[in-house]
Amino acid sequence: MRLCSFLSEGHAHVGVVADDDSVVDVTRIVADRGDDLPRTMAGWVDLGSAGIDQLRRLCAESSSDHIVGDVDQLTLLAPMGRLPRNVICVGVNYREHIEESERAVGEIDVPDAPVYFTKDVRSVCGPFDDIGWDSSVSVQLDWEVELAVVIGRAGRDIRPADALGHVFGYAVFNDVSARDVQLSRNQWWKGKSIEGSSPFGPFIVTADEIPDPQDLELTCRVDGVEMQRSTTKLMINDVASLIADLSRALTLEPGDVISTGTPAGVGLARTPQQWLEPGSVLESEITGLGRQCNRVVRTGV
Amino acid sequence: MRLCSFLSEGHAHVGVVADDDSVVDVTRIVADRGDDLPRTMAGWVDLGSAGIDQLRRLCAESSSDHIVGDVDQLTLLAPMGRLPRNVICVGVNYREHIEESERAVGEIDVPDAPVYFTKDVRSVCGPFDDIGWDSSVSVQLDWEVELAVVIGRAGRDIRPADALGHVFGYAVFNDVSARDVQLSRNQWWKGKSIEGSSPFGPFIVTADEIPDPQDLELTCRVDGVEMQRSTTKLMINDVASLIADLSRALTLEPGDVISTGTPAGVGLARTPQQWLEPGSVLESEITGLGRQCNRVVRTGV
Repeated sequence: MRLCSFLSEGHAHVGVVADDDSVVDVTRIVADRGDDLPRTMAGWVDLGSAGIDQLRRLCAESSSDHIVGDVDQLTLLAPMGRLPRNVICVGVNYREHIEESERAVGEIDVPDAPVYFTKDVRSVCGPFDDIGWDSSVSVQLDWEVELAVVIGRAGRDIRPADALGHVFGYAVFNDVSARDVQLSRNQWWKGKSIEGSSPFGPFIVTADEIPDPQDLELTCRVDGVEMQRSTTKLMINDVASLIADLSRALTLEPGDVISTGTPAGVGLARTPQQWLEPGSVLESEITGLGRQCNRVVRTGV
Repeated sequence: MRLCSFLSEGHAHVGVVADDDSVVDVTRIVADRGDDLPRTMAGWVDLGSAGIDQLRRLCAESSSDHIVGDVDQLTLLAPMGRLPRNVICVGVNYREHIEESERAVGEIDVPDAPVYFTKDVRSVCGPFDDIGWDSSVSVQLDWEVELAVVIGRAGRDIRPADALGHVFGYAVFNDVSARDVQLSRNQWWKGKSIEGSSPFGPFIVTADEIPDPQDLELTCRVDGVEMQRSTTKLMINDVASLIADLSRALTLEPGDVISTGTPAGVGLARTPQQWLEPGSVLESEITGLGRQCNRVVRTGV
């Protein structure tokens, strides 16, 4: 199933997007039934695979009254709203991206073990939201299309063989990065945490529909020009090994979002370097997970 | 006021600790009144300085029925429970700590701007909780006593002169660090996020009682031996400038916790190096903010 959050009379509703792109309003179904099923995406994610089964039953039983139109007609929001914890991001997880980054900034210390940093929950924006640009904050806003993984079952010290069973679903994420801020501070959190900079969605596609997360094509375009095109086959640490490693001495919980690193083609590494600017249109897409499109707009004074 | 969270019949209650160390059970007062005042510390922090005023009035009106005993008799919990967002930590913020770290690991890239990283919300433990030690996770568990700042009023692009007005209160925090994990991964989040490793509290002392956060003495002892002793006078970036810098392009919100860096004396930089081990007793204290005490215990197989 493709799940989305959309705006309905000022509130975030959960929608299930059918194959014909019509959207069933799950939040309204639950309200009409008056039972204690979740009314938010976070609530459904908490239920894990049982939630996915229940959503499927609800949709099968739903009437056409609960169809709110085509997905293109709705205002889509970041699929989980405010996240419960920072996005856990993976650095240097595609070989070609490491090589291009080293050409741009010199040798990078690439450890054998995965490199993690986080993005503040307030850096996440919706899949079609504008991204603010303020020269007093950053003049080096860069793109990084990534496969995001949403955890749906808690676990600690998870074995790699069991890891994908902890995934609720997958989504497109763009780990937009203020390179001047990021690279002037040694640790990356601040440059990765510009408020409302990083689009998530449009959908969370449930794990049952993605038989192999290591066979998805990622693309990123700026103003229609393709900047990144790669496949998750080329990840250094795959999704299962990341979940296993992350869960060492740390209980992963439903609602955790792991963004698995970006392939080659970022603006930092281009000759000449290239950045998002006011008016830029950023499009990020992953096979089967949908496409996000964000305009960069000048903010501040 | 000194605020604490304590265990009462399986639930976290908010307490106000009087000068004679007796504790008023605020959660029970609110329940008895039956009004809509907060019953959790997070709720009081959300109210900011108005919450502090209201707490003071509640205590002034309270009867001896609401005193639950002396603070020493209670089971104190991390004062805010599960935090709403990762702890925002400041790296390399005391000159002597930079110098000792460079002696230990070689030259450190110390930028002009503050260095931030985060600790997972699940790394926080209570002020008297045991800290787990598992050799398969880390054999280099180190201490870092720090002044933590709890934000109580939202703001973005806050001016340094206004910054302290956004503080709800101050607390002791120990940014316990698994050095082997931290330093083998380039970015620090994973080594800083061992579950339940990092004691917070015992109190949040409201900002009105700390006229100058840059004049507090920090000490850290391991097995009774003093390892760290310094003063917040020696911070490179003071609390006000940190809040101002952090709030650039990011709205700080009530409940954000900023841990402001550690002074010299960590185990990594000692000759020979020294680590927490099963049986170690870690004590961390800041003038006026109280003392935390944690035993390190072997976990895992």
